[in-house]
Amino acid sequence: MTSQLLYEKYRKSLEQKFQKLFESYLPRTLYDPSAYIMKSGGKRLRPILVMLSAGAAGGNVNKVKNAAVAVELFHNFTLVHDDIMDNADKRRNNQTVHKKYDSNTAILTGDNLIAHAYNYLLKDCSDNNKKVINIFSQGIVEVCEGQSYDEAFETSANVSIDDYLKMIKKKTAALLEVCCSIGARLGGADPKTIRALENYGLNTGIAFQLRDDLLDIFGSEDKFGKMIGGDLIQGKKTFLFLKAMQNAKGDDKNLLKSFIRNHGIKRKDVSKFKKLYEKLGVLDDTEKEILYFNRRAIKSLNSIKDSNYKETLIWLVNDLSGRKN
Amino acid sequence: MTSQLLYEKYRKSLEQKFQKLFESYLPRTLYDPSAYIMKSGGKRLRPILVMLSAGAAGGNVNKVKNAAVAVELFHNFTLVHDDIMDNADKRRNNQTVHKKYDSNTAILTGDNLIAHAYNYLLKDCSDNNKKVINIFSQGIVEVCEGQSYDEAFETSANVSIDDYLKMIKKKTAALLEVCCSIGARLGGADPKTIRALENYGLNTGIAFQLRDDLLDIFGSEDKFGKMIGGDLIQGKKTFLFLKAMQNAKGDDKNLLKSFIRNHGIKRKDVSKFKKLYEKLGVLDDTEKEILYFNRRAIKSLNSIKDSNYKETLIWLVNDLSGRKN
Repeated sequence: MTSQLLYEKYRKSLEQKFQKLFESYLPRTLYDPSAYIMKSGGKRLRPILVMLSAGAAGGNVNKVKNAAVAVELFHNFTLVHDDIMDNADKRRNNQTVHKKYDSNTAILTGDNLIAHAYNYLLKDCSDNNKKVINIFSQGIVEVCEGQSYDEAFETSANVSIDDYLKMIKKKTAALLEVCCSIGARLGGADPKTIRALENYGLNTGIAFQLRDDLLDIFGSEDKFGKMIGGDLIQGKKTFLFLKAMQNAKGDDKNLLKSFIRNHGIKRKDVSKFKKLYEKLGVLDDTEKEILYFNRRAIKSLNSIKDSNYKETLIWLVNDLSGRKN
Repeated sequence: MTSQLLYEKYRKSLEQKFQKLFESYLPRTLYDPSAYIMKSGGKRLRPILVMLSAGAAGGNVNKVKNAAVAVELFHNFTLVHDDIMDNADKRRNNQTVHKKYDSNTAILTGDNLIAHAYNYLLKDCSDNNKKVINIFSQGIVEVCEGQSYDEAFETSANVSIDDYLKMIKKKTAALLEVCCSIGARLGGADPKTIRALENYGLNTGIAFQLRDDLLDIFGSEDKFGKMIGGDLIQGKKTFLFLKAMQNAKGDDKNLLKSFIRNHGIKRKDVSKFKKLYEKLGVLDDTEKEILYFNRRAIKSLNSIKDSNYKETLIWLVNDLSGRKN
């Protein structure tokens, strides 16, 4: 089976689960929004990473499907809460949970998703899997810390590219690392294989966030499923912005400094910044950075024995590079 | 040692831990508010229930201290998020987290507390304690469901006393049940003892919430640490309100119906409702109901062998009945 077909096969089998999740739970005031976000699609990247990692470690892919559901619940909890914090209207081309319902409902929905995530994770854990639960919890801690740095950076004038990379490691890459770690461990991997897959996840995650930063301004709203320029409006110091600051001089630099001073820009100025980014070559810079982390991700897998799963993990890195959403 | 001295001893030893929690963690934008809420005091009832239950089950009280920290983290997560939802200004006579910082920080703080709670819980779990983690997660689910019912009831015209009791079992009593269950299990209790302590926690929790409803209107703001009449202003259909509806006739009933229609009352009308409650005898009705659940809690412990811990659990039921905060 080609890598793409394998990915699709897993995606479809997971999708069936997600479409039926929380159907029979009460109260519906809590579980309708929970089902809504879980049914709203997406790449299902994180649960598939759990399955591929288990496979690459020589384990049974079908025995980690609940853990796969757990990481998708975790991911969606972060989306629901982040969208409140970012006051975002759209997610995956749908209304965000707090817009469709209200903020209180969205807070509670996120909280509830976390707890259900643990219950799913436990289903695939045997008695000696305490470490797996620990890694999952630590993943939530990392995401919260990353999100807190991200928020703090919005109003900080001194954010370096190193600060930014440290932040996205926590905010985005940690969860992908957790997915690979849990898949590997439940799949019975030895410590070296666990480490290899964790590194794969971490580097893939960094590249993933860099691509996200890029799509936020150079993507197509329809395909990306979110408002274009959202990061700029919110004052997010993305990789593109920080590179632009490095490259700019004179009036260009002053324009970028006004972004820092005003903690973002108005919606009408998004295209002006897009043109500035193009002029300053930050698109190329970002693609180069993505390539660097992609190569590290693939190199991490060198020590693992060849398999269809490993091949798919490699394919995935390149596929994610071409993504539009 | 008397029960009161034992409780105080545990409280002090836990308090030392809580005062130092999150001291060295980064970023401070996340951990200052986390430390702030954990240092803000309170009765520390839930962690002490873990310890007393472990003791009553014949276990080593000192080996469940991390689990005790876990339930207090869980409790404080719910407080931080509930205070956002209820738009509360004050908690334990301090500013609430979302007022002192902001809502985004408070959302993130709550999320982070949950994850740390699991990490603490895991410290006291051996490999065969999967069930303990399951119970903890299910506790979070129950609290979320209870909170969702509570919110839905604010705008519902048909809430019965049975609905109310079902709601507070989830919103408040489930966590106390979880504390006793986890303490008992980690203390090595047999299934019968586990069930006895769980029942104790559940019934104590119901009585606790009924007392909370009562203090919301008949308490003293200084001692209660929260605004008096908050439930009435928010349109909460507490036990007192539902009893008043049962007892009232004529104009009194019409006044209560206006509360339902308007989803609450204005601050200036709180004393009018207090007088009405007094006239309708709902204070007595609530005390009777509390007594009923207190007796059930104490009776649950009949099957457990006598000990200083059991004695303290019994003392605690009566002590909580006299609480002002």
